[in-house]
Amino acid sequence: MPFSQPLPLQSGAAIRDYALSYETYGQLNADKSNAVLICHALNASHHVAGVYEGQPRSEGWWDNMIGPGKPVDTDRFFVVGVNNLGSCFGSTGPMHVNPDTGRVYGADFPVVTVEDWVDAQARLLDALGIRQLAAVMGGSLGGMQALCWSLRYPERVRHAVVVASAPNLNAENIAFNEVARRAIVTDPDFHGGHFYAQGVVPKRGLRIARMIGHITYLSDDVMNEKFGRQLREGIDLKYSTQDIEFQIESYLRYQGDKFSEYFDANTYLLITRALDYFDPARAHCGNLAQALAQTQAKFLLVSFTTDWRFAPARSREIVQALLDNKRAVTYAEIDAPHGHDAFLLDDARYLNVVRAYFARIAAEGAVA
Amino acid sequence: MPFSQPLPLQSGAAIRDYALSYETYGQLNADKSNAVLICHALNASHHVAGVYEGQPRSEGWWDNMIGPGKPVDTDRFFVVGVNNLGSCFGSTGPMHVNPDTGRVYGADFPVVTVEDWVDAQARLLDALGIRQLAAVMGGSLGGMQALCWSLRYPERVRHAVVVASAPNLNAENIAFNEVARRAIVTDPDFHGGHFYAQGVVPKRGLRIARMIGHITYLSDDVMNEKFGRQLREGIDLKYSTQDIEFQIESYLRYQGDKFSEYFDANTYLLITRALDYFDPARAHCGNLAQALAQTQAKFLLVSFTTDWRFAPARSREIVQALLDNKRAVTYAEIDAPHGHDAFLLDDARYLNVVRAYFARIAAEGAVA
Repeated sequence: MPFSQPLPLQSGAAIRDYALSYETYGQLNADKSNAVLICHALNASHHVAGVYEGQPRSEGWWDNMIGPGKPVDTDRFFVVGVNNLGSCFGSTGPMHVNPDTGRVYGADFPVVTVEDWVDAQARLLDALGIRQLAAVMGGSLGGMQALCWSLRYPERVRHAVVVASAPNLNAENIAFNEVARRAIVTDPDFHGGHFYAQGVVPKRGLRIARMIGHITYLSDDVMNEKFGRQLREGIDLKYSTQDIEFQIESYLRYQGDKFSEYFDANTYLLITRALDYFDPARAHCGNLAQALAQTQAKFLLVSFTTDWRFAPARSREIVQALLDNKRAVTYAEIDAPHGHDAFLLDDARYLNVVRAYFARIAAEGAVA
Repeated sequence: MPFSQPLPLQSGAAIRDYALSYETYGQLNADKSNAVLICHALNASHHVAGVYEGQPRSEGWWDNMIGPGKPVDTDRFFVVGVNNLGSCFGSTGPMHVNPDTGRVYGADFPVVTVEDWVDAQARLLDALGIRQLAAVMGGSLGGMQALCWSLRYPERVRHAVVVASAPNLNAENIAFNEVARRAIVTDPDFHGGHFYAQGVVPKRGLRIARMIGHITYLSDDVMNEKFGRQLREGIDLKYSTQDIEFQIESYLRYQGDKFSEYFDANTYLLITRALDYFDPARAHCGNLAQALAQTQAKFLLVSFTTDWRFAPARSREIVQALLDNKRAVTYAEIDAPHGHDAFLLDDARYLNVVRAYFARIAAEGAVA
């Protein structure tokens, strides 16, 4: 959907003549009260559920969660998936032409924040005629957007579902983002972010960034269980520093290669920066409870015990700050082995918690 | 010290006409019973203690631990520091000439293992006339060498001091090593490991490798305390993906830059591979107790609660396997906040444990 009106950004800049890609699932009811907005994390898009016709392997990234009869039941809810500004899956991003210069944005794409994304999403909902969301939901960086919605548009959010998220990044999180960014930026094929014109892609940097990411998505336990010290071939060591020796190396290289084929390097920088910057307590001298005082929504928070990227303690900070404000909060800490990745995986307890919560939203009566 | 006799390696290859750099501290006693061998980790050398004349900032890397009146008291013990084969601080390494070809080794330097290092160290001790060590000691990868000594030369080790170490790397450890290696190997300035002839250094890759390393050396807690979300300058955000915004970014970039100025890229590959390969239980179908049955030494193990690189649980595996063999084991788990780095830092409890242990060794009477 094209937007001609300039969107003012947190940085002071603005972006004009941009478009947002989105998909919808289910039917918006007569009083437009059953809309659920799904916010994505780093490597995802507006395609949250279902498959495209004739493309059996094109499942949406949250297809186990969203669909007819699924925890977020599209027989009851009107679900909206949207690709964020600066991403590389259809919405306006660094690979598109800057209307001010007539040249591809590249590194000149404005730095966008979680707040900017939420503002852009709000305009999309305006265009769809949705004044209030039954729920806004996301995992990881998507959870930050859900939390941000409850702060920025309190009256437009009845429920915020914040999964495997945090009220801000800690130093270690920022550190991993920074290493990934340095790997991309120092790749000679990055060309200061204007690699499109050179006909190259900084794949080396993207590979390294993705490998680092994958390590932080998995728990120590699941890595040891899935890969351990297993050799890739046979039982004899090759004694090589560059050949693949262990299964875990093979897995990481594969993930890195795959990612570098489709993900945009400038998008990677933008999205990790948005993660770094998100910090609603910042304007309140670090007092999260004070920051969350303006929320009006009810909340579901979910965390996973082995998630060391966004540990349960970080979700509990949000829960505590909401309780300090006497908000209605449901909190589930799922004892899952899969680390941060768990929020995308099938875990019956997790899916049932979300299912029960959305059943409650439906039962509130505002949903047809 | 030069060695002309070829050293057979675990890989089946051999290395000939190599030299080991070493330093000694204190006096070897008459019956040569007071020798302590110090083994280094990734980024260290034979210069374990003291300062070089006229170079006040040249403290040895374990200077807080080793010296006159220090926990490893060089008034009592004859301490030997040795730089390992393949390293870049004086001993024969990839930057030296291969006598078989007359060309610099580069990527052709043979892959060396912890076992190979220990064998080379044993030859150095032979040359110094030391038949038995009062103790062999090391932290991290150095601890693996100490453990390996107790297995490979059981009768030559009275005490093994294994600090912040592990019986092998787990999948996550290998994963971090692999990302670092890929960053180096895919740097265009690596030239397949033969960059010396090109007059360049793969600094980009070394920087990334070091940044990743530093993240894993520090605990989450100490990172949050030291850096947190502190901005580098002022209180206003710059909204930039490439400029330094947070203090932690500044710290990591500085560490990466510094490292890339002096460390050898091929050495980085070799040493991380030696880490990956070390696994004494491997020949015993993963049974560590069985592997450690051949030890004769007494042991001190030390771990640090916030070390997530080599977590206390990994030290406890060694302790348990030694107890299963009814070996004499002292184990201290120090509640230090500094993560893996703690083994190099001043912590009175830690230093006192080591001091008391070495006082006991001295009191055994074999030491003058």
